[in-house]
Amino acid sequence: MNKIIDLIIIGAGPSGLSASIYASRYGISHEIYGKILGGQISETHHIDNYPGMEDMSGFEFSQKWGHHVEKYGIKINPMGITNIDKKDDVFELELENKKIVKTKAILLATGTKRRKLGITSEEAFSGKGVSYCATCDGFFYRGKTVAVVGGSDSAAGAALYLAGICEKVYVVYRKETLRCEPYWTKMIEENEKIEVVYGANISEIAGSDKVEKIILDKDWKESREIAVDGVFIEVGSDPEFSFAKNLSLDIDEGGYIKINKDCSTNVPGAWAAGDITDGSDKFRQVVTAAAEGAIAARSIFNWLKKG
Amino acid sequence: MNKIIDLIIIGAGPSGLSASIYASRYGISHEIYGKILGGQISETHHIDNYPGMEDMSGFEFSQKWGHHVEKYGIKINPMGITNIDKKDDVFELELENKKIVKTKAILLATGTKRRKLGITSEEAFSGKGVSYCATCDGFFYRGKTVAVVGGSDSAAGAALYLAGICEKVYVVYRKETLRCEPYWTKMIEENEKIEVVYGANISEIAGSDKVEKIILDKDWKESREIAVDGVFIEVGSDPEFSFAKNLSLDIDEGGYIKINKDCSTNVPGAWAAGDITDGSDKFRQVVTAAAEGAIAARSIFNWLKKG
Repeated sequence: MNKIIDLIIIGAGPSGLSASIYASRYGISHEIYGKILGGQISETHHIDNYPGMEDMSGFEFSQKWGHHVEKYGIKINPMGITNIDKKDDVFELELENKKIVKTKAILLATGTKRRKLGITSEEAFSGKGVSYCATCDGFFYRGKTVAVVGGSDSAAGAALYLAGICEKVYVVYRKETLRCEPYWTKMIEENEKIEVVYGANISEIAGSDKVEKIILDKDWKESREIAVDGVFIEVGSDPEFSFAKNLSLDIDEGGYIKINKDCSTNVPGAWAAGDITDGSDKFRQVVTAAAEGAIAARSIFNWLKKG
Repeated sequence: MNKIIDLIIIGAGPSGLSASIYASRYGISHEIYGKILGGQISETHHIDNYPGMEDMSGFEFSQKWGHHVEKYGIKINPMGITNIDKKDDVFELELENKKIVKTKAILLATGTKRRKLGITSEEAFSGKGVSYCATCDGFFYRGKTVAVVGGSDSAAGAALYLAGICEKVYVVYRKETLRCEPYWTKMIEENEKIEVVYGANISEIAGSDKVEKIILDKDWKESREIAVDGVFIEVGSDPEFSFAKNLSLDIDEGGYIKINKDCSTNVPGAWAAGDITDGSDKFRQVVTAAAEGAIAARSIFNWLKKG
C-alpha cells in the first residue's frame, strides 16, 4: 500500500518551483516531479525581465531556483508523470517508471510544449539542422548561417543569441512587424548580423544529408530560397497536460486550463499554475508563473487544513 | 506648459519597480516616483520567499531591484505625490515640492501603511521606545528586552530578527495561535529567547522618559505587566492612496483598490498593482506584487498603442 501524501507538484519550471518554496514554508509535506530543472527557462539563453535577477543565463537562473527549493529539504524528482486518475478523493499518479504515487492534492505546472511548423521536411531534418532550442544547439553553428522562424519574444531572444555565435542570422516571420517586446525589436534592428524577412512562410527545408536551404512559400510576399546551415523553429507553444486527460479539466479556447483566483481548477483537489493556465491575464512570464505558484500553495494549505 | 508624458508610476516598491522594468522593455516613456526604494521591503530584515533570491536583507534586495530599473536609464524620483486630478483625459499630479507633472496613464503602486495600536501612550512614546520598524531600530536594543505586538509574518520576522540582537523578546498576540507562515511559527517556538504571550492585548505602554513596561489588558486571558525597553508594533497595514481621492476609485470592503485582470481600475488611464489592490487573491507578497506590475505594464502598453 502506498501512503497518501498531501501534495504532488508536477513540473519543475518557475510555477512549480515557486509553489514548492511556498509549500515548504507553509509546512505542506509534498513531492515535486519535473524532468528538467527550470523547465523552458533552462533552455532560455538569457533572462532579464524577472525583477531583481538581471541578465542571467537560463541555466544559472534555474540552478538558483533549484537551490532555493532544496534548501527546505525538498528533492526534485527528475521524472515525468504518464497518467493521473482520481479515485475516492485520492489522486493516483503513474510515473514513467510505472510506479504509482498517491496524493490528496495536485498542482499541475507543466507549462507549454514547443509548436512545430508541421511540414514534412521539418521531421526529416530534425537533429540534422532543424532545432527547437537555440541555447542547446546554437554552438554547433559557430561562424555559419542560420534562420530563426517566428516573431515572438522567444524567436527574438534566439536570434540575438545566435547573432553572437553565427556569421549571419535570418529571422523569417509571417507578419510585417515582430510581435516581441519593442526592446527586442530595437536590438534586432540594430544588429548588423540579423536580417528580418517579413511576410514570409517556409514551405520547405531542403538539403542532401543535412539542411542546406529554406524555401519560402511562393504565395507570400517574400518568395525566395535562402542558403542556411540550420533552422531554429520558434513558432510558439501549446499547453501540455495530456497525462491528466482523465481528470476532465475545464479548458479555454486555446487549450489552457481555466483557473479561479486561487489557482484552483474545476476538479476538487487539483490546482494549476504557470504557462499551462489562463491566469495572469494570459501574460505568460516567469514572474507571473511564480506568483501563481505562490497563490496556489497558499490555497492548497488552506484546503488541506480544512481536511 | 508641462509636456504630457505617457506613464507615471507612483511607488518604488516591488510592484512599481517591476512595472518600470517591463515598461522600459516595452519602450514606454515613463517616470517613477517613490520616497523609499523598495518600499516596505527596504524595512524588512530578511526576505526568503521571493523565488530565486534566497535569504537576503531587505536593503540588499531593494538595491538589486533599483539597479535593475536603472539599467534601462530610468531614475527613481525620491518624492511623494500629494494630489492627483484628471482633466480632459490627462492626469495632473502634484508633487511634494508643489510642481505639477502631467501624464496620460498612471500606475498606483504605493502599497500599504503600517497600522497603529491606537492607544494614547503609543503616540507619547513614539521614538522613545515605540517603533514600527525592527530593521530600522532594532540595533538600539542590543542586549535589552523588547516586545513585538502582532502575530503576522511581519511580526514573526521582526521577532526573529530582534532575537538575534536582544536579550529577550516577547511576542504579544491576541489569538491562541500565530497567523504567520508555519515556517515562522516553528522557528519562533524553537528560539529560546522568544516567549509568545497568547490571548493578550496591550492596554498601556508606560515609563518615565522612555518605555519601561507594557501593561496587558485585564479583561484578556493574559493580564500582567511586562518590563521591556522597547515595543515594536506589527499589527498590520492599510492601503495608502489618500493622494488619489479625487479619482473616485472603486475599492473593496477592506479599502483596497479593485482591479480587473489586466490591473486596470474603474478609472480609464489608471492602473493599480501590488499590496494596494484586491488582486492575486489578496495574497500580498513580493512575487505577486511584481507579477501585477508586469501585467499592468503590458496592459498600459496596449492601451497607449491604441492612442
